[in-house]
Amino acid sequence: MASVKLGIIGLGNVGSGTLKILAENGAQIADKLGFPLEVAAVCARGFEGKTITVATRQSTDWRNVVNDPNVHVVAELVGGTTVAREIVETALESGKSVVTANKELMALCGPELWEKAIQKGVNLAMEASVAGGIPIHTVLREGISGDRIVALYGILNGTSNYILTAIENSGAAFDDVLAEAQRLGYAETDPTADVDGFDARSKLAILSALAFGQKIEAKNIFTMGIRRITPIDFEYAHTLKHTIRLVCGARLTPEGLILSVRPALIPQSTILASVKGAYNAVWVRGKYGQDTFYYGRGAGPEPTGVAVVSDLMRVAREIRSGSPERVSPFAHEQLAAFRPVSVEVQRRAYYLRFRVKDQPGIIASLAKILADKHISLDAVLQLPGDNKESLPFVITVEPSTEKAIQDAVEAMNRLDFMVEPALALPMETSL
Amino acid sequence: MASVKLGIIGLGNVGSGTLKILAENGAQIADKLGFPLEVAAVCARGFEGKTITVATRQSTDWRNVVNDPNVHVVAELVGGTTVAREIVETALESGKSVVTANKELMALCGPELWEKAIQKGVNLAMEASVAGGIPIHTVLREGISGDRIVALYGILNGTSNYILTAIENSGAAFDDVLAEAQRLGYAETDPTADVDGFDARSKLAILSALAFGQKIEAKNIFTMGIRRITPIDFEYAHTLKHTIRLVCGARLTPEGLILSVRPALIPQSTILASVKGAYNAVWVRGKYGQDTFYYGRGAGPEPTGVAVVSDLMRVAREIRSGSPERVSPFAHEQLAAFRPVSVEVQRRAYYLRFRVKDQPGIIASLAKILADKHISLDAVLQLPGDNKESLPFVITVEPSTEKAIQDAVEAMNRLDFMVEPALALPMETSL
Repeated sequence: MASVKLGIIGLGNVGSGTLKILAENGAQIADKLGFPLEVAAVCARGFEGKTITVATRQSTDWRNVVNDPNVHVVAELVGGTTVAREIVETALESGKSVVTANKELMALCGPELWEKAIQKGVNLAMEASVAGGIPIHTVLREGISGDRIVALYGILNGTSNYILTAIENSGAAFDDVLAEAQRLGYAETDPTADVDGFDARSKLAILSALAFGQKIEAKNIFTMGIRRITPIDFEYAHTLKHTIRLVCGARLTPEGLILSVRPALIPQSTILASVKGAYNAVWVRGKYGQDTFYYGRGAGPEPTGVAVVSDLMRVAREIRSGSPERVSPFAHEQLAAFRPVSVEVQRRAYYLRFRVKDQPGIIASLAKILADKHISLDAVLQLPGDNKESLPFVITVEPSTEKAIQDAVEAMNRLDFMVEPALALPMETSL
Repeated sequence: MASVKLGIIGLGNVGSGTLKILAENGAQIADKLGFPLEVAAVCARGFEGKTITVATRQSTDWRNVVNDPNVHVVAELVGGTTVAREIVETALESGKSVVTANKELMALCGPELWEKAIQKGVNLAMEASVAGGIPIHTVLREGISGDRIVALYGILNGTSNYILTAIENSGAAFDDVLAEAQRLGYAETDPTADVDGFDARSKLAILSALAFGQKIEAKNIFTMGIRRITPIDFEYAHTLKHTIRLVCGARLTPEGLILSVRPALIPQSTILASVKGAYNAVWVRGKYGQDTFYYGRGAGPEPTGVAVVSDLMRVAREIRSGSPERVSPFAHEQLAAFRPVSVEVQRRAYYLRFRVKDQPGIIASLAKILADKHISLDAVLQLPGDNKESLPFVITVEPSTEKAIQDAVEAMNRLDFMVEPALALPMETSL
């Protein structure tokens, strides 16, 4: 049977994983599809040191792949938002379906690109753009498309999760764990995108567009990274039968959709707490299907390659059947406008961790501020320790609005015994 | 936009859940699809006490639905393998796509029905037939279709899992927990299908056909239920840092595909151990994507309804686009023949639990039998207890073939101090 011909642009981690799977698993793929996939052309910056086991045209200019009349589908595995955007736009414009692994690009202009795809009668697929090894796009787009999602929580950045669980297990400080993660290749030389939450934010923007049908702008998502989490925070969290994870949250509230990326306390008993190391997970609450949970590798050439290849198979099937039956990468034919709702209106129990110069009257001063803001104190915890110059302790408070907590923390930070600003983390007790 | 018209046959739990979701969530469904779904006809044994909020033709004869020229897609939600089979065959024969929630039917003759669907150019969808709330079919069929699955483990029977976790938590005996589960509606009056593993077996047959592309016959799957699991087994399992679950396992080995449904010890640290109560889960190991894990409600009108509605949406999209682009419900266009491989060849560590009349020389006798069969003893455990007439204790052994274990147990059961046959459970330490 005639094959569907692929053009692969970018032979970094994901591109190499994709080529490897297409080569090694080609027979099973053809069995599943009823026809083979063929790599007709590949593009890379250079081919030195690259093993390409399939006979194919090689080029260092992406235009040669996109404009190749033999290529039916283009896989954009370059990353970034400049050249990648040009590749995707050019491919769609010339009537070719596109598979992409590019979270930044899809978070930035996915809905626009999809409009172009509709207009040209082709498809755009992006399973690999979020949580590489977890087929969460397929799940939201088709598997539970009949449900009405009310909340989605994700652990979407493997580097942060690796660092947090390493702090949790070893008791080492953030900087030391980060250095070790960099040495092992789990963290980039510039770790900002990972540890400050921006990578996770792009992924949350894409998943919540899919889940809630809105044109989410990543820049409107409340984002806080993990730099301030210390071993002592895990000690207190464990005392409270919780752990700490960088939680990407999207909740449909009466006020609207509230989105945030932030470290939060989650109960040790929840299945999300079992996500350790570089794994990713997504927890979805549907109005009808209730809770479902998806877990797997967040990255890596082969797990992400599976996502790319599975998308290529889907798109190839459409091409073979000559069918315009395409499901939007965002599950909805059209996305509604995004009306961002501030996290400030959201009510949560909070964990407040302080470092103070020990002196009489500290609890009284803090309790007064909480009382002034109408925040009910739940518990005061102090683990054994003797550093009187920088004494850590924790106050937990009953559900209060984020605004009230922010105001209280601001007032507390002005007190003269505070060694560093208070750390306020929400407690996601409903997970 | 013109709607796609549905015929719903069967208004039990799943049928009612399906109708409820179609009615309440109709606007969002239309937003996602770009056109509405319309319930054109429903069939039930009777309509007394049924709330049908959509205007639709009602009938007590399924033929009126299947033969209704307005109906484009038929949902078979009747269950069983006689009338249901007739409904599905008649609908496919008359050129209508079918969505079914029927695990028994699909385990029995799914591949045949799919051949008929191909022949007629229509589709057959069965997401709801296994693990209602978990979109595991979509995942295997499309989400990770590019991967090569090497193992699949499932907790696929909610009733058994509810009973096992209740024994684990309360320390009550199987019969008492079963009676309570029956009272609460978690178990049927005749619990055989659930507690003896037959329900799970049908589900495993379907999922492994999907995952491995073979025409699995349920009757060839090694099946053992949970009736012999006692509170003391959980005590010993916990001592070994394990728990006990009814594990549906499918493993691709050099000998071939080995399938089993049986209670097994699984490490407490594995994510599968966190599956409690009536929840279901599926754990998949792919050659490329490595481990992924899927978790959700196994049953219930609305979670299963989500699966039916999501399938209806997919099939409706195909109908609207006039497209013959259908993905096989079994992921593969054609299933290969099933060459069952006996569990006997499989090597596992084992947990052997005995009840004996206490007397000198017991361990020596048992150890001799193990030595004769070349099985290495790993540990002997005896928790405090004083029932000398029926003293429980446990031996764990190093990885040995199932055949060797069965032979050893058979020899042990002939010893005069044995109060009841030894219970042998595999230890799934690789999970």
